[in-house]
Order: sequence, then structure tokens, then C-alpha cells
Amino acid sequence: MKKLWGGRFQKTPEAWVDEFNASITFDKQLVEEDIQGSLAHVKMLAKCGILTKEEGEAIEKGLHRLLEKAKNGELEYSVQYEDIHLNIEKMLIDEIGPIGGKLHTSRSRNDQVATDMHLYLKKHVEAIVELIRELQKALVNKAEQHIETILPGYTHLQRAQPVSFAHHLLAYFWMLERDKSRFTESLKRINISPLGAAALAGTTFPIDRKYTAELLGFDEVYLNSLDAVSDRDFIVEFMSNSSLLMIHLSRFCEELILWCSQEFQFVEMDDAYSTGSSIMPQKKNPDMAELIRGKSGRVVGNLVGLLTVLKGLPLAYNKDLQEDKEGMFDTVKTVEGCLQIMTGMIETLKVNKEQMEKSVKQDFSNATELADYLAKKGLPFREAHEVVGKLVYKCIQKGIYLLDLPLEEYKEASSLFENDVYEVLNPYEAVNKRNSLGGTGFKEVKEQINKAKAII
Amino acid sequence: MKKLWGGRFQKTPEAWVDEFNASITFDKQLVEEDIQGSLAHVKMLAKCGILTKEEGEAIEKGLHRLLEKAKNGELEYSVQYEDIHLNIEKMLIDEIGPIGGKLHTSRSRNDQVATDMHLYLKKHVEAIVELIRELQKALVNKAEQHIETILPGYTHLQRAQPVSFAHHLLAYFWMLERDKSRFTESLKRINISPLGAAALAGTTFPIDRKYTAELLGFDEVYLNSLDAVSDRDFIVEFMSNSSLLMIHLSRFCEELILWCSQEFQFVEMDDAYSTGSSIMPQKKNPDMAELIRGKSGRVVGNLVGLLTVLKGLPLAYNKDLQEDKEGMFDTVKTVEGCLQIMTGMIETLKVNKEQMEKSVKQDFSNATELADYLAKKGLPFREAHEVVGKLVYKCIQKGIYLLDLPLEEYKEASSLFENDVYEVLNPYEAVNKRNSLGGTGFKEVKEQINKAKAII
Amino acid sequence: MKKLWGGRFQKTPEAWVDEFNASITFDKQLVEEDIQGSLAHVKMLAKCGILTKEEGEAIEKGLHRLLEKAKNGELEYSVQYEDIHLNIEKMLIDEIGPIGGKLHTSRSRNDQVATDMHLYLKKHVEAIVELIRELQKALVNKAEQHIETILPGYTHLQRAQPVSFAHHLLAYFWMLERDKSRFTESLKRINISPLGAAALAGTTFPIDRKYTAELLGFDEVYLNSLDAVSDRDFIVEFMSNSSLLMIHLSRFCEELILWCSQEFQFVEMDDAYSTGSSIMPQKKNPDMAELIRGKSGRVVGNLVGLLTVLKGLPLAYNKDLQEDKEGMFDTVKTVEGCLQIMTGMIETLKVNKEQMEKSVKQDFSNATELADYLAKKGLPFREAHEVVGKLVYKCIQKGIYLLDLPLEEYKEASSLFENDVYEVLNPYEAVNKRNSLGGTGFKEVKEQINKAKAII
Amino acid sequence: MKKLWGGRFQKTPEAWVDEFNASITFDKQLVEEDIQGSLAHVKMLAKCGILTKEEGEAIEKGLHRLLEKAKNGELEYSVQYEDIHLNIEKMLIDEIGPIGGKLHTSRSRNDQVATDMHLYLKKHVEAIVELIRELQKALVNKAEQHIETILPGYTHLQRAQPVSFAHHLLAYFWMLERDKSRFTESLKRINISPLGAAALAGTTFPIDRKYTAELLGFDEVYLNSLDAVSDRDFIVEFMSNSSLLMIHLSRFCEELILWCSQEFQFVEMDDAYSTGSSIMPQKKNPDMAELIRGKSGRVVGNLVGLLTVLKGLPLAYNKDLQEDKEGMFDTVKTVEGCLQIMTGMIETLKVNKEQMEKSVKQDFSNATELADYLAKKGLPFREAHEVVGKLVYKCIQKGIYLLDLPLEEYKEASSLFENDVYEVLNPYEAVNKRNSLGGTGFKEVKEQINKAKAII
Repeated sequence: MKKLWGGRFQKTPEAWVDEFNASITFDKQLVEEDIQGSLAHVKMLAKCGILTKEEGEAIEKGLHRLLEKAKNGELEYSVQYEDIHLNIEKMLIDEIGPIGGKLHTSRSRNDQVATDMHLYLKKHVEAIVELIRELQKALVNKAEQHIETILPGYTHLQRAQPVSFAHHLLAYFWMLERDKSRFTESLKRINISPLGAAALAGTTFPIDRKYTAELLGFDEVYLNSLDAVSDRDFIVEFMSNSSLLMIHLSRFCEELILWCSQEFQFVEMDDAYSTGSSIMPQKKNPDMAELIRGKSGRVVGNLVGLLTVLKGLPLAYNKDLQEDKEGMFDTVKTVEGCLQIMTGMIETLKVNKEQMEKSVKQDFSNATELADYLAKKGLPFREAHEVVGKLVYKCIQKGIYLLDLPLEEYKEASSLFENDVYEVLNPYEAVNKRNSLGGTGFKEVKEQINKAKAII
Repeated sequence: MKKLWGGRFQKTPEAWVDEFNASITFDKQLVEEDIQGSLAHVKMLAKCGILTKEEGEAIEKGLHRLLEKAKNGELEYSVQYEDIHLNIEKMLIDEIGPIGGKLHTSRSRNDQVATDMHLYLKKHVEAIVELIRELQKALVNKAEQHIETILPGYTHLQRAQPVSFAHHLLAYFWMLERDKSRFTESLKRINISPLGAAALAGTTFPIDRKYTAELLGFDEVYLNSLDAVSDRDFIVEFMSNSSLLMIHLSRFCEELILWCSQEFQFVEMDDAYSTGSSIMPQKKNPDMAELIRGKSGRVVGNLVGLLTVLKGLPLAYNKDLQEDKEGMFDTVKTVEGCLQIMTGMIETLKVNKEQMEKSVKQDFSNATELADYLAKKGLPFREAHEVVGKLVYKCIQKGIYLLDLPLEEYKEASSLFENDVYEVLNPYEAVNKRNSLGGTGFKEVKEQINKAKAII
Repeated sequence: MKKLWGGRFQKTPEAWVDEFNASITFDKQLVEEDIQGSLAHVKMLAKCGILTKEEGEAIEKGLHRLLEKAKNGELEYSVQYEDIHLNIEKMLIDEIGPIGGKLHTSRSRNDQVATDMHLYLKKHVEAIVELIRELQKALVNKAEQHIETILPGYTHLQRAQPVSFAHHLLAYFWMLERDKSRFTESLKRINISPLGAAALAGTTFPIDRKYTAELLGFDEVYLNSLDAVSDRDFIVEFMSNSSLLMIHLSRFCEELILWCSQEFQFVEMDDAYSTGSSIMPQKKNPDMAELIRGKSGRVVGNLVGLLTVLKGLPLAYNKDLQEDKEGMFDTVKTVEGCLQIMTGMIETLKVNKEQMEKSVKQDFSNATELADYLAKKGLPFREAHEVVGKLVYKCIQKGIYLLDLPLEEYKEASSLFENDVYEVLNPYEAVNKRNSLGGTGFKEVKEQINKAKAII
Repeated sequence: MKKLWGGRFQKTPEAWVDEFNASITFDKQLVEEDIQGSLAHVKMLAKCGILTKEEGEAIEKGLHRLLEKAKNGELEYSVQYEDIHLNIEKMLIDEIGPIGGKLHTSRSRNDQVATDMHLYLKKHVEAIVELIRELQKALVNKAEQHIETILPGYTHLQRAQPVSFAHHLLAYFWMLERDKSRFTESLKRINISPLGAAALAGTTFPIDRKYTAELLGFDEVYLNSLDAVSDRDFIVEFMSNSSLLMIHLSRFCEELILWCSQEFQFVEMDDAYSTGSSIMPQKKNPDMAELIRGKSGRVVGNLVGLLTVLKGLPLAYNKDLQEDKEGMFDTVKTVEGCLQIMTGMIETLKVNKEQMEKSVKQDFSNATELADYLAKKGLPFREAHEVVGKLVYKCIQKGIYLLDLPLEEYKEASSLFENDVYEVLNPYEAVNKRNSLGGTGFKEVKEQINKAKAII
């Protein structure tokens, strides 16, 4: 097959090298962006008098026909034409004759592919921002129903202090809020037009880059043509943001998986988000949560992959950059999918309030209250801490909890103890009173929910 | 040795476990931030009546003495007290007696260490933003001297089209500009106070988190105590931004190393940034550039390390999070060092203008001009491209360049060629005429420099 | 749709969750391995009397029919049946009736999928070992033709000492030899049978795991059923080995790209491994080399992805492990493709001997000879090094090379210099005399080629 | 300060560039290996007549004095002499005069540093293999005490089938066995001598590389000098093996952390491996397990860091390679430390047998038995699975377990059920009967322990 760039060459690459080289198998996902970019380009060429009005109209018409076909899935791509750009150009020439060859005036595949990817990522980052918002809504809704549902708060996976379940859920709300702000800020660096940078140096044709940028909805244009065609920062930034988002989801899923276990039993997953076992009939597995947790791996892997590609690469375009696409597509698909599944999982989650509250009573997570009690009566905190540590040890030896310990034993440990000690040991009160800003006290949690609602 | 948290325990960890567990060997770098955080905390405790005025003043005085000593490098840390927080607390008690134990009222190491790290990173991200600006200045200065210095622009490391050296340097200016904007935006998420989140749930003491935040120069406070103590996103974001910055530097250094080679000879490194060989007396190696290129690896490695730590970690604090520090310190040191070295390297770089211009004349990088020439005369670009490809091939066969080809041979290839063809083939003109926005034309480059100057 | 494991469930997952959960879109690549595994399993069930002879034969026959169809690409998979195992089982039941359901006796998808992956990877690692050998052959063949072709050897990309081109090529031979040995050793850990581990704990049926292992060509069986179903080490090891191999290829490709540049011109890529530009007619880009260099990124990314998946995963099977497959398939495809392309690229590489030799004469890479010359006459090497460093500096000032410096100037620098100094400065001699073991001397290189040939 | 390689240079690098460039702050860890390498080198030089006997003896004596001082920690290093090699050389010259300068004859820092690192890593990989063996011993010992201790086996963190605790522990034994085999095999590629490769091309001096290799205990010599000085594969391989080992430990630690939780209570960590909280007196945190789990991150990060460094690096030595050391030192220290801590943690682990067994009785993990029971009576497994799934659902509705269900309800579900069904539902029997090879049956587990003992 004759290559469009083959004038200088004496020999045709063998088919299998073609295939290795070609990107059409995956960059066909960019078909709509590619045609939109071409439409803007040709309008500009005509406006600037680089093409005649008639030429411009003919090419536009041809492109519109191709766009229609693309949307209907009627285009057939060929590995022989390497990539989406040459495939579309070939189809255009087939459609409207050799005049189609004028479309590529003052443009290179280097700025063309960069344009496609900016358009593509803009669309998907905006979608991801919306999907994050949906998940945040699900969290706030669930939280509202569980302000006074208390469960153990953990550090080191040891029960530490009881907290409101709403409070726990909202911790993820704020992580997601940061994710959202990072994605949103990244749009500034995504929504910039490289079109017109040509191969690397700009062009001698009197093009109007601001016009194409405007037609395509870009906010700005790249101010340096070399940078415009070499820059893949916006994809790295997208992958970094996605990696951190996925790490958040992995942490949340880890907790959901724990909570679904026979040992915790804090929540039950809806059947729609669980699967069974081919050998063990009793199993109800939180597959979706596990899968999302696992999928953090591929997103981090995609990030590392692209950083590795870019490391040490001289300016301007190098073929290595073709490796930017599959990881980006995969990350988009993964992140969008995980956010949707996660939202459904939270919305349908059954919360086992009784089990949570039962857990809170069978541990020493009220010990801090005791230390604070002594500190408030004037004992330096460090000494209070030591006194309580010994009382806890005594209880463990006896197989009882702090509420079960008689007052005389408290008094033995410190003369500061009085009968009101049993009040502070009540876990409900322990949560209720933590009304420092951002704390788990019910009043504070309500406040927090209001702030969260104001955001979404 | 007796642990401060040892009341509940019957056995003392053996020394080597202590050492494995301890973080004091590295977190002592946080000593000033830790004392500053404590100063704010104690002021607030006194203001809110949690400590008496006298208690507050005694503790403040003690902390100021420790801060002084810290600045003079007079503190001696011990692995027995695990980390910077317990070391300082122990010293404080030694300094002012058991009253020092009251400092820890309504605070946990969990919110304390988070506070230290936010303070630390804020300081260093601000420093990095300044260092980036310095490097940008060096680039703009160098660029101003080389607007009309032309060298081959490359794609695929093949000479593509001649460009202005200023233009090439400025490509890095814009990459750095994006880095700067990412670091700057990240400050929003760094400069938030976790202090007062206590262990994980807030506290029952009537603390004033906004007051401590204000004293420490934070813009906001975390609104969820669980999130406050578990969040390491700001470090991940810092490492992501640092990784991308280092990738940029690695690309630049790759080019500098190429340009220093005997084959390119485009630049000469100053002796201060070069070293010799212990066996080969003639060598002058661009060691600094290589080292910076290599150091991109450790920064990416630190990022991957922290993402791996965080993956699947349940709320709230887990000891795994201790692994956040060394990578952060190392990244800060690496990035700050590389930026400074890079700036010096650019400032002192000798540019071999003659060699650059010689290169531009000995290649086919003016071939695009020829194709554009034909396109402007109405030939569809694709056909023009093909005609020129064949002319190039003919020249290679003859061992000549396009300027050497007689007019008749041009006419033979296409009747559109006329005598003015030799003008467009002149590389200086080829650069000069690329005045599309962001292009390498001298006028455009001057414009670009003005924009760059307006930024820094 | 009714799930095979759905007895316990009251609700059917919605279609889109199904799709997220399903692996059939990619694990269908394991179809032949899956059927082979089932064939071995059913033969064993019949042999051990767990199925009757008739049942066994019926199932075998059905599986053979499916295998035939699979090889002809006639099977149609459905997302409703999640994965390759349930798809095949469904088809089997369609083919031979409910008796097909007996195939799954004393087996779980957990040991089944592990078996498939071991079989798959064994086949491909063996193929990769062969492909490495082919590339090694290409290197040795090319080396044999270039024993006395000399080019500059570089350190820090600065010309250091001249070397034989064969010697340079053979450096990659030995890297590949280590790759080959790592892949070969890994087969020990790949070629082990997990079949019969069942869900996680083994089975109460009187199965014969050694028999199925033997039928499938495995060397050993896993000795612990929990380990058998949870182990993905063999894939991590494969990805680690692949990453290092790809790093080697990235280094080689970097050199090829440099050597193809106008500045080096040491080699010319065959047209079949080069492509052109859509805008610059003169370009001949080493696309394949760039692509391979870039593809190191995805392989490293796949490794990081899987390590991230496995981090912190409790025993035994977790759904996260489904994420092991796509990265493995992608790595196999990438590595196999790159090795083949690389071999073709080396075989067809044109070596520009004249340019290489010209380069050797225009530098100071013979300076070490001079230092050794003095050292051999008794001057401590450090002093000799210093003397020569100054002579080099003098030459640079004068714009000449060491061979051009008159004897009196040599004698001025050290009285040890005599007329024989010009002999040692000859680059050909410099190479020829480096006959220390493994050195670049022609005799030694021939020896090295003999050793290399003995290996492949 | 005057550099040893400074003859060619006119300007001294400023102090801070020196510091950035210098490696002495970390490569001083190689001091003993460096002196040993020099001792072998000088012995060889004298044996081969390159130095006189007297020169050789003088240098040897000087090196022995330095080695003594090194062992006593009496050497003082200076950043001015960049690295360990030049520091030692300077000290040697100070010690024995200018004759010390002859040590560097026919050697370069390139082969010298490679030699040091091979020696260093050999020593530490051998140590790591021993530490793995110690951990394996601890596992086998603990397993022997718990053959008949049963606990739930999990998939998806859902109780699946009961298993022997010994069986669970032994799963890690086999993972470690694979780690050990990988580390052991890697020694082949570590224990090779690069000494004598000189800068990159070998030397014209009549050296004897096999003699130095023998003196240093290397098994082989590198057969290609370029490869010898550029190769860092052995470090990558070490880091890959270490990453996988750490992933294993992270999985084990995850389980230990789960098992220590109030919810599981399967084990209790010894106080020596736990720490408390500065605010919550009751806490006993499994800090060591968390720290090891977290430290998997830094080891994976080190691996990624080095791969990134090496990507795209041309031959031969480049300064980037200096970045190989800190990650290697850190990995060695981390892996050695984690293995020791892990061993102590397992040895001192208290197993809560009662709690484990209690758990086994309160779930449906005997459901598979029921399905197998039906399958053995001739029902296709798929149908048996369905029948049991429905019985499980019925029990959940009633809040009972399978053992509590009356026979008539069994018979209603399938006429194949008879009174012996209650026997197969006993979890002890369920474990005991799984005597397929590698299964969890007690007999099989004993067999497995014997095999494990035979290995260590």
C-alpha cells in the first residue's frame, strides 16, 4: 500500500510492521474530536483566504458526512492508513476527490493529534467532575440518615473512639471535594488549543489560531509551537488526579469490605453489587468493592507508564508519544465506571445500626473520656493517661469494661474520680460532646452536612 | 525505658524494635514546625481557659527556649522517645517540670504530626515556586540573547524545520509555567489546619481551632476530624507535581547532554557544571545535567511509594502513614537542589551559534517550505508533499542539498516552480516567516518573550 | 439473566454492573487453556471414579467439540456469563445436556483460572525465550561483520575511547542473555499446577492432582491449596523480567535513534522500519525504535499496577485478582512484538563504517592511551593523567588533535615522551591493543563472539 | 580545591555544586568493599608485573591500614573528594606518598564502583536468604503447634470454608520459599566481576581479571567491558525480588492487623511488637505490622525509581547511574529489618484458638460440604449448588445455621438428604476430610510440614 508520506521511500513496510506502528485500533476513539478539529481548521482556512470559499465548503460538507457516519458507527478503518487522521483524510478524498488533500494545508498530524486529545480529555474531565458530584450527593444523603448512628472509630484498625457514622462517611466527601477541585483546576491546562502549531514551528500561512480555538471551545492557545506539539502534561496531570481519586476509592472499598465481613457486619451490600461463588453456595461477595479497590492498580500503573514514556524525551514530537493514548482511554473508562458503581453501591447500602452500636459498647473506646475527665480536674494529661492505662489493664484482666468497674476501684486509682464518671463513659455522650469544630459531635456533624450541601 | 504511653503495657520493647519503630532519625527535620504548632496550641488553651494563664505562660516560655536551642542545633534527640513530638515533650517536661504534660491536653500526635507536615510543606512549596521563577528568568534572559540564533528543530531526533534558539528555550519556560501554576494551586490544599482534630474525633474540650489556624498562618481548617488526621493527599499532590517538574527537567537535560556532545556541539557547559574522568584526561562530562535527568527517577519513585502506602488503607490514622515523611523530605531536597543547579547551568551556558547555523544549512529541513510553496500556488498539499519527497530523494542520491538543485530539475518535477524558489529555501527566511501565533518567526518570538516577561 | 451461582440471591444485577464485573471481554483469550484444563480435569474425575466412564466420555467429547470451535473462532461469548469459565460451562451444557454440570465437581473457578494462567504464561514465556534468542542471533551476525569497524565509545555521551562496533553490539547480547536466564528460571515457578486446590482448601473428593498436572505438562503441583489460588507471583515475576528486558531495548533504541540522526549518521534504518512525515517530505523517522523505547513505559506501568493490586491483600482469592489479566496479556503482546521488530531492525540495519571511523579521528578519545603510555614508563597514573589533561587543553586552544602536536611539545610536557608516542595515538591501534579479557581488542572480540555463538 | 581529574579544567566548581555532585555522603557505606577491591587489584598488578613487588607491597600495606581504620570508624570523608573511591585514594596517598597514585593503573572508577556494588549486594543477598529461612522456621514452628486449630478460611474476606491455622501459616511459607529461590538464583548474576573493564573498553595493560575475580570470591567475570560498567540489572533484579517479598509481607501483615482487631480477635501481638497511643490509654496497636505493610511502598518506589533512571540511557557509564545507590542501600536496610521484625512477631504471637473455633461455628462455611454431599450422591454439581444456595437463604431468613435445620427441611429440598448430613456439616470433619494433595486436611497438613522442614 502506498503511504501518504511515502514519496521519499523506496520500499513498503511489511504488513506486520504496519500493524505494530499503527494506532488506528485505539485512536479511532478520537474520531469525533478529529473531525470536529478538521471542521474548525477548514473554516479557518477559508476565512483566512488560504482556501477558496468553494474549496472550504466542499471539504466541510464532506467532513459533515463523515461525522454523521462516525456517529452511526458506519466508518471502517484500515491499519494501512496508520491512524485516525490519515484514515479520515483518505475517506475524505474518497468522498470529495483530490480537493480533500487541501485540508491538511498548514497543519501537521502533530498539532492535529494534540488537538484531538485536548478535546477528548476536556469532555471526559467535565464528565468526571459531575460523577464525583453524584457520589458526593449519595454520601451526603446517606450521612443525613445516620447522624446519630454511632460506630467505633478506628486507628490502627483498633477501636479508638466512637464516632457518628455520618461523620465517617463525610470524611470521604471531603476527599472527593479535593479531587473535584484538582480536576476542575486541571481544565485550565487542558482547555488550550495547540491547533496551528503545525509540525513544531508554526507555519508561514496566514492562519488564525484564535479563531479555531474559539470554534472548538478552547479558552486559550498555546503560545509556543514546540511546546504545543510536545506537551502531554495535561494527560499526566489527569492521570495523577485519577490515581489519587482511585486511592481514595480503594480506601473506602477496603472499609466496605471489612464492614461486610461476618466479623464486622456493619453494612450489607445490595445484591446488585455482590456476587456468589461457583463452589460455595452461601457466599455473598462484595465483588464490586474489591474490583474498584483493585482497579486503583491499573490507574497508578497508567500514570507510571506515561511518566516513564516522557522521561528524557527531547523536543519536539517523538513517536514514543503515541503511547499516551491507550493509558488515557483506559483511565477515563476506569474512573468513570468506578465512580458510577460506587455511587450505586452507597445509595443501596444497608446500614446495620444495631450491630454498630453493639460494637461501641464492647470495648474500651471510652477510655479517652476518662483521661479527659481527669485532665479537666487538673491532672496533667500525661499523668491522666497513665492512670487510665492501668485501669484498662485491670479491666482486661477481669474480663470487664470500664462501665462495669465499681467506683471504689476508680477512687483507688485517683482521688479525683467521683460518681459522675459513669456519665462520661457512655459512648453516646462521648460522641455527642465532641463538638469542637470538625468533630464528631452530632451538632457539629449537622453543621458539616450543611456545609457539604452548600457545595454540591 | 518507660514509654509515655506505656501504662497499659507489661513489657518494654527491645531496643532494636524501638529503633525500627522510631521516626526521630528523620522527623527531627520538623522540629521548628513542631514547636511552632505547640506554641499556637498552648496559646489557644490559655485563651480558652483550658489552661490557666500561668500554666500557659510557663509552657510558652519553655517552648521558646527549646525553639532557640533547635535553631542553634543544640537539641539532642533520643530514639527512646520515638518521634519528634515525644522528644520535644520530654525536653519540655525536663525544662519546666510536670506542668509540661498539660501541653498535650485536647491534642493527639495524630493531629500534631499532620500540622507539622502542612507547615513544612507550605514553606517548601512556596520556596519551590520561587526557584521555578528564577529558572524561568534565566531562560528568558538567555532567550533574549538568541532570538535570531537558528538551529535545527527536531522531531524523532531528525532535523525537521529550523527554529529560533530562543523559541526552543521558551518551550521550557511554558512547561515551567504550568508547573508553577500547579504548585501554586496546591497551596490551597496544603495550607489548611488539622490541629484540633485530636486523635480522630475532635475533642470535648472547648478549643478554638480557628484561632490556632490563624496563629499558624493557615487559610482554613479541616472540616472533618477523621479526614484531618488521615489525609496525606497534599503530599501525594506535591509529589505528583514534583514528578512532572522533574520529567520536564529530565527532557531539558537530555537535550543539553545531546547538545554538549562532539556530534552536536551546540553548547558548552561551564566548567563549574562539568566534571572530568579519573582515567580519560580529555573528558568534560555534563555531570550535573545527567544527575538531574537521573534524579527524576527518585522523585517518581517517591510518588509511587506513597501511593502504594495509601492504597487500601482504612480510616483513620494507621502507622503506615509514618512512611510519608522520608519520601517528602527527599523530594523537597531533590527538587530544590535540581532547580538551583539548573538555573546556574542555563545562566552560564555558552551557546555555539556558528555550529547551530552550520547545521541548519546541511540538511533538508527546508523541505516543508518547498511543499508550502507549491501549496500556496494551488497544488493540494498532499500532492505537493509527494513532489518534494521525490526531490529530496534525488538530492540524497546526488549527495547535494535542495539549494544546490538547478531550476530545470525543479521545473521538471512541477511546472509551478519558478526562480523565487531559492528564496524560500533560505533557512533564515524559513524561520523568519513563521509568524503564525506561537510560531518561531522572530517577530512572534519577541512577542512571546514579552508575554513571558509580563509573567515573571 | 439467571446466574449459575444465583441460588442465594433475590435480585439480578443490572446489566451495567454485570459488564463492569465481567471479564469475558478479555479472558476469552484463555479459551484454549481453559478447555485443556477441563479436559485434564474430567479425565482425572473418570479415572478416580468420581464420574462414571460414560459421564467422563460424554463431557470429553463435548469439550473437544468446543475446542475445535474455539480454534476456528466460532464461539460466541456473552457478558451474562461473566467469564470464560462460566461461558464454556454454559456452552458445554447446551452441547451435552445437564451432565455437563458434573464437570465442575471438586473444582472451583479459583483453581481453574489459576490453571489457565499458568498454562498461558508457560507457553508465552517459552516463546519469549525463543524470540530473545533470535535477537541475539541477529546481534552476533551483525557483530561478526563489524569486528574491525571502530566507532567512538561514549561515557556521559562524550567520546571516551574508540571501540569495535561488534563489541558495542555484543554488550546487548549479554544483557539479553541475562534476560533469557531470568525468564528461563521463572519457568520453574510458572510450570506448577494449582488444579485441585478447589476454592481454597482442597476437596473431600478422592482426586489425583499429580495426574492432571502430568496431563497438562506441569512439572509440579502447589503444595498448599490457599497459596495455589492466591498466588500471582509468577505474573509479577514475568512482569519484572519483562520490564528489565524492555529497559534494555529502550537503551538500545535510544542509541539507534542517536545513531540515525544527522549529527551521528552511524547507521541507516531500513525503510521498512522507518516512516515519513505528513508535513515534512524529507523526514525519515526511526519510528519503530522510538515506539519500542516508549513501550518500556507500559510494561513498567503494568508491573506497578499489579504490585499495587496485590499490596495488602489478605488470603485467599479476592476479586481484585481479576485485575491480573489485562496487564499480563498486554505485556505478552508488547514484549513479543518488540522483540520481533527489534530483530528485523538489527538484521536490516545499514552500518555507516566510514562515518564511524571518521568520528574516531576527530576527537581526543586517544588521550587515555597517552596516559597509559606514561604510566607504563613509570609515572604514577595520577600524574600521567594530569600531564595529559594539560596537553588536551593545549590542543583545544590551538584547534588541533593530539596526533597533530609536535614531539617537542610532548617532550616539554614530560621527558618520558619519545617518537613512539604517535603509534599509540592511532585509534585503530588503541582498539586493537585492548586485549584484556572482555576488552574491545579485535582478538578478544573474536573470542567473545565464539562464546556467544556457543550459547545460542 | 584541586580535583584529581582537574588537569583539563580552568575553574573550580563552587562548593554547592560539589555537594550536589558528590556521593560520599552515602557511598561511604561501600568503604570496606572498596578497599577489598583495591587490595585484589594491587595484588594482581604486582603479580602481572605492572607494578614492582615493592610498589605492590607498599600499597597493600597502606590499604590494610585504611581498612583497619574503616572498621574502627576512624576515617573522615570529605565532600571535596566526591566519592568513596577518590576519598580512599587521597587517604592512601597521604598515607604512603605519591606511589599510592599507581594503584589506579589500568582501572577506572567505572569498573571500581561496579565491583564495590557487586560485592556489597552479594553479601546482603546472602544475608537476606538466611533471614527468609529464619522467618520460614518461625512459621513452621508455629504451624506445628496449630495443625488442629481451625479457623475460617476466607475468600473476598467472606468466610468460605474452615481451614487449619497451620495450613494458613504455611501458605506464607511457600511464598517465602519462592522469594528465597529468586534471591538465590539472582546470586548468579550478582557474583560476577566487572573489575578490569576499566573505563569502558578494557585496557592495554596485561592484567589478569580472573585472578582478581578469584581473590574477591566472584564466580565469573563479565565478558564484555561495556556491559560490565553499564550493567545495573543485578540491582533492578534485587529490587524486583525485594518488592515481591515485601508484597508478601504486606499481605501477611494485613491479615495480622485484621486478626488483632476487636472484631476478629484471632491473635494477640506480643507487647514488644505493639505500641500505645498518646491520647487513648486503652490502645494496643500492631504498629510493627502496619509499618512493614507500609514499607512495601518504599521498596516498590525504589524499584520504579531505578527503572526510570535506566530507561533510555545510552552506553556506557552515565552519571545518572550514581542514582542507583541510595535506593539499593535503603532497600537492603528495609528488607533486612522487616524480615527480622516479622520473625520476632510470629515467634511471639499468641493464638486465640477458642475464638478461631468459635468463629467457624457461626457461619455457613460448611455449605460446600452440603453441595459435595449431594454431588457425591449423583446430583450434577451445578444443581447441588443451587439446592444448597436456597437452604442457606432459608437459614438466614430464620436466623439459624445449617446444623440447626431439621432433617425434614433437608428432605424437602432434595430427596437425596439423609441423616448422615449432620456429620458432614461438622466443621472439624470438614477440615479433616480435605485430604486432597495440598489440602487442609490434618493428615495433609502434617505431610506439608514435613516437606517444609526438609527444605529449611
